[in-house]
Amino acid sequence: MNYIKNPGSIESRSFEIIQEEIDRIRPGHEFKNEIDEMIIKRAIHTTADFEYLDILKISDKAVENIVEGLNNKASIYTDTNMALSGINKRLLDKIGCSYSCLVADPKVADLAKEKEITRSMAAVEIAAEKEGEKIFVFGNAPTAVYKAIELHNKGKLNAKAIIGVPVGFVGAADSKEELRKSDIENIVSVGRKGGSNLAAAIINAILYYYFR
Amino acid sequence: MNYIKNPGSIESRSFEIIQEEIDRIRPGHEFKNEIDEMIIKRAIHTTADFEYLDILKISDKAVENIVEGLNNKASIYTDTNMALSGINKRLLDKIGCSYSCLVADPKVADLAKEKEITRSMAAVEIAAEKEGEKIFVFGNAPTAVYKAIELHNKGKLNAKAIIGVPVGFVGAADSKEELRKSDIENIVSVGRKGGSNLAAAIINAILYYYFR
Repeated sequence: MNYIKNPGSIESRSFEIIQEEIDRIRPGHEFKNEIDEMIIKRAIHTTADFEYLDILKISDKAVENIVEGLNNKASIYTDTNMALSGINKRLLDKIGCSYSCLVADPKVADLAKEKEITRSMAAVEIAAEKEGEKIFVFGNAPTAVYKAIELHNKGKLNAKAIIGVPVGFVGAADSKEELRKSDIENIVSVGRKGGSNLAAAIINAILYYYFR
Repeated sequence: MNYIKNPGSIESRSFEIIQEEIDRIRPGHEFKNEIDEMIIKRAIHTTADFEYLDILKISDKAVENIVEGLNNKASIYTDTNMALSGINKRLLDKIGCSYSCLVADPKVADLAKEKEITRSMAAVEIAAEKEGEKIFVFGNAPTAVYKAIELHNKGKLNAKAIIGVPVGFVGAADSKEELRKSDIENIVSVGRKGGSNLAAAIINAILYYYFR
């Protein structure tokens, strides 16, 4: 069996094919700018789903704010270990940003039990109490998105931006609409689609563009 | 903001909505059997993508072999940390199955460099040398799929089955076609779509159905 075995060539050829496919299905399609293009193409690269051309929405200052946060050693909080495991931590280490998924923290389980809320919600409450600027990366839990908006509205979140792309059938679409309506800078997949893999891909696209 | 905060209700309501949506878009759709139904619905649950009704293919004895492997304390090998992080390890611990993603192993990097192959390929070579029955769970690397088929054809793999759902534009679709043509029991997403999240969801569906 013959097959390409060089990871670098696989990636660059993949992005060529993605552009060819966009030219075929959307002749003349234009991205708002180069970083939006890179984020959306990486979303497609991660999912092989060209619907992200339409459903991935990036608020005006979302990328600017995320880059500012990354430059200021903001902390990155994910809602799942899966999202965290997909993020390029070598680059985050290089620029000095910390990262964590708080869901497994025993304090989170205790708080969730005490307040009868999801662990994802408790994790956001605990993250919000930490010092410093924060970037939230949510690929799974609508309740985390809602809780983040609630805390932001009370002035208690200190978020540079929220990457909010929970996937699912209950609450996911609605939570993302609320996030888009909020005054938090955001990157959102409209509707049911999304996921931890997508969440990681979006922050990686920004890392690769500005920090590689 | 009002929203469902109970994870159990969210999941059961999600599966109801998935069935309602199948009834709408595919009236009269029938699954081959109950476990195929659970696997495909969990794939949809994880991706919100109903294309998995058509593209997820489960070979005749794939599930039987995987369950046999899980009962025999087979080892589970993933191609990415992301797939591993999505698998329900509490259940695997309960039934005594080990699990690992070998890609980060320093021996893998050395072998990949020495042989000029991808780390995913080197990881499969190293896994193949381990004792005991194996279940491979691939969501990312076509080269891992190809390498596994090569080793199987040489009688060196000892795989009960391969969950082979790499996503992507270079090699993914072809590698999955090769896997379907092989005599290894397999679960495959035909075409470009797939992913580490999907790979984890498939093994989880089997764990939840037989071992929860």
